[in-house]
Amino acid sequence: MARRAAVRVNEDRLWQRLAEMGEIGGRGDGAVSREALSKADRDARAKLAEWGEALGLAVSLDEQANLFLRHSPASKEIPVMAGSHLDTQPLGGRFDGAYGVLAALEAVEAIREAGIELKRPLDIVSWANEEGCRFAPSCNGSQVWAGARKLKDNFDARDAAGVRYGDALMNTLVGLQQISRRPLGGNCVAYIEPHIEQGPILDTSGVPVGIVTLVQGLRTFSITIEGETAHAGTTPLRIRKDALQAAIRAINALNKAMHDPDDTLRFTIGRMILQPNTPNAVVSRATFSVDLRHPDAGILVRQGDSIEGIVSQAASPLRVKVEETLSTAPHLFQDKIIERLESAANGLGIANMRLASGAFHGAVFIERKCPVGMLFVPCRGGLSHCAEEYLAPDHAAAGARVLAAALVELGEPI
Amino acid sequence: MARRAAVRVNEDRLWQRLAEMGEIGGRGDGAVSREALSKADRDARAKLAEWGEALGLAVSLDEQANLFLRHSPASKEIPVMAGSHLDTQPLGGRFDGAYGVLAALEAVEAIREAGIELKRPLDIVSWANEEGCRFAPSCNGSQVWAGARKLKDNFDARDAAGVRYGDALMNTLVGLQQISRRPLGGNCVAYIEPHIEQGPILDTSGVPVGIVTLVQGLRTFSITIEGETAHAGTTPLRIRKDALQAAIRAINALNKAMHDPDDTLRFTIGRMILQPNTPNAVVSRATFSVDLRHPDAGILVRQGDSIEGIVSQAASPLRVKVEETLSTAPHLFQDKIIERLESAANGLGIANMRLASGAFHGAVFIERKCPVGMLFVPCRGGLSHCAEEYLAPDHAAAGARVLAAALVELGEPI
Repeated sequence: MARRAAVRVNEDRLWQRLAEMGEIGGRGDGAVSREALSKADRDARAKLAEWGEALGLAVSLDEQANLFLRHSPASKEIPVMAGSHLDTQPLGGRFDGAYGVLAALEAVEAIREAGIELKRPLDIVSWANEEGCRFAPSCNGSQVWAGARKLKDNFDARDAAGVRYGDALMNTLVGLQQISRRPLGGNCVAYIEPHIEQGPILDTSGVPVGIVTLVQGLRTFSITIEGETAHAGTTPLRIRKDALQAAIRAINALNKAMHDPDDTLRFTIGRMILQPNTPNAVVSRATFSVDLRHPDAGILVRQGDSIEGIVSQAASPLRVKVEETLSTAPHLFQDKIIERLESAANGLGIANMRLASGAFHGAVFIERKCPVGMLFVPCRGGLSHCAEEYLAPDHAAAGARVLAAALVELGEPI
Repeated sequence: MARRAAVRVNEDRLWQRLAEMGEIGGRGDGAVSREALSKADRDARAKLAEWGEALGLAVSLDEQANLFLRHSPASKEIPVMAGSHLDTQPLGGRFDGAYGVLAALEAVEAIREAGIELKRPLDIVSWANEEGCRFAPSCNGSQVWAGARKLKDNFDARDAAGVRYGDALMNTLVGLQQISRRPLGGNCVAYIEPHIEQGPILDTSGVPVGIVTLVQGLRTFSITIEGETAHAGTTPLRIRKDALQAAIRAINALNKAMHDPDDTLRFTIGRMILQPNTPNAVVSRATFSVDLRHPDAGILVRQGDSIEGIVSQAASPLRVKVEETLSTAPHLFQDKIIERLESAANGLGIANMRLASGAFHGAVFIERKCPVGMLFVPCRGGLSHCAEEYLAPDHAAAGARVLAAALVELGEPI
């Protein structure tokens, strides 16, 4: 029966929807700008709702702007869920996030076309603000749904332009008021998230489907160094309290301390903001981010805990504030879900392999509610979050076929 | 006769005007935000025009938004000019710029009160966009007036919010359309600019007036390093093309090369802008400024010319673009003006000393038209461009007295 659904997966239809979704916020060169709670993000949700309604799915939105499309039998059973997110990085690609949502839509459409009756409802979900680039923290849509975070704790975050999260959320909800509202939270028996790998392993191995065994741990920090501005022409260097130069000393020290001969530790400084940031004045304040990831919990604890001391010493005598903005331990998915996804792929004769996720995913939070699995598909060159991000149509379809088969089994055919 | 004018300088009146001007764009803590061609900058010009009209001065504005207040005898003689600027850094103080304009207004009012008849007109001037922090380059108001730059070459500059200089200038001109328009450019027999020192020499020496002998040379550069963004969680460090890390290597190399045991070379990185500047993505592009100053032309040429090679080597293999945005050789003022200002101060019994200017000033450009002199007054702790910037009322008056005396002599009493 799983195979009957999988063969109904339509590669062209899925590809067409990915292209159409990629035009919302698309820049014409493959890049997509669809940051969380922006107009483009709202338009993407409206498009998904429109597709769901055209298929006869029950569409609903919660107070956190998580969007659900339900394929529902006449039962009150706890649903199976699948999906991902539609928001992107400031400049992201067409597949990160969107693929998981549209693969779930394709899988559900295939199951319906195959006329398979299931005991459980199937929920296609698009989580709000997965990326976290406009509003920190990331994944707060799935966190709130799973009870890992309170809705109101999101409200005061501000984007770079000073817009408050609560206001942007309200704009999105008002803009989508034609969609039925559903209560926050809920239950599920399993959640499957398909996603591009965002790394090079499947692409270089030539394997179309990856079964994710773990998501490496992640700790993020915001580091602020307070100096004092001064005139660039008149102030001798020895009396300056230059926050940028102190930040550079700190980064030099961190580069040394975080060096990993195995190149497994991921240490990234992706954001730096200076005050007053004008060419002829000494920098009074430097704020920079640290993103630290490793599959080994012990290493992540040790290295992350060392940051404050290293930065304080290197930036001395300037004052330093180190704030940990996110900490998630390495997350191991359950064997029963990994085996279920493997057997679905094997049953369809689709080559697959187990692998770890380098990227963080909101799926981790859903495990508070039910077992979670992730299906990876290859992206060319391992590239993501850029115009060059690319998923081949046959790989997109392979992932959707494995998902359709898994959803049939998890949905319990009658 | 010079002394008759100087004693009419009113310390309280000058102090009151400085306080009132400091409220336009003032933050309440001493800091002033009055960036070039902003609403606050326009309001400051309107206030100056209002004061000039109340005194019976002829007020006029040129197409570059330079504002002139003329004390005019019934003659067609070439005028003597004095003034400075009213725009500030993003957060500046109450005295940088404003003091020069208001000291000139005070000196002219004192000369009128003393009933001294001069052969030459006196022009009080407020140059547009001296700071150059919102729109590069700095001093483009005085540059255009002096014929060192074409008006239309300013139009395409954009501020950080993307606003075009031409549009901001038009807004300012329309907002001040009640003021008579005068043709661009003109002539003068001498120009005197009073200014706070922006350095610690007068303050630590306890001398109220400095006569500026030279403005040190300045070269500014904009350096862009092009890398490639990538996912922070999945991309091994060895294959990254991280533009921030390359910028840090470049800055480390520059710090070493620009080290001066005498601490005379001023080397500042005040601005850095990253793309995409998001915590979980490798930086694709880093742009930073270099501000380099020295009184010795040879050292400035040698050190400035070395920057491109140092940065290119340190940032390798990433691509680097080094653009020189401004270059002015050290500028020596003419002995006859220096001596004229000295004799004015000595004639009044006001202690004075010669000194070099660490800060750059648009006065340098005016020397294309006529001899130029600068009068410095002390600022507490040498601080400027900040809330703590402070000029004592008696020092403010001392500078205005020397200026009044000098203007009388330069204006040729009848």
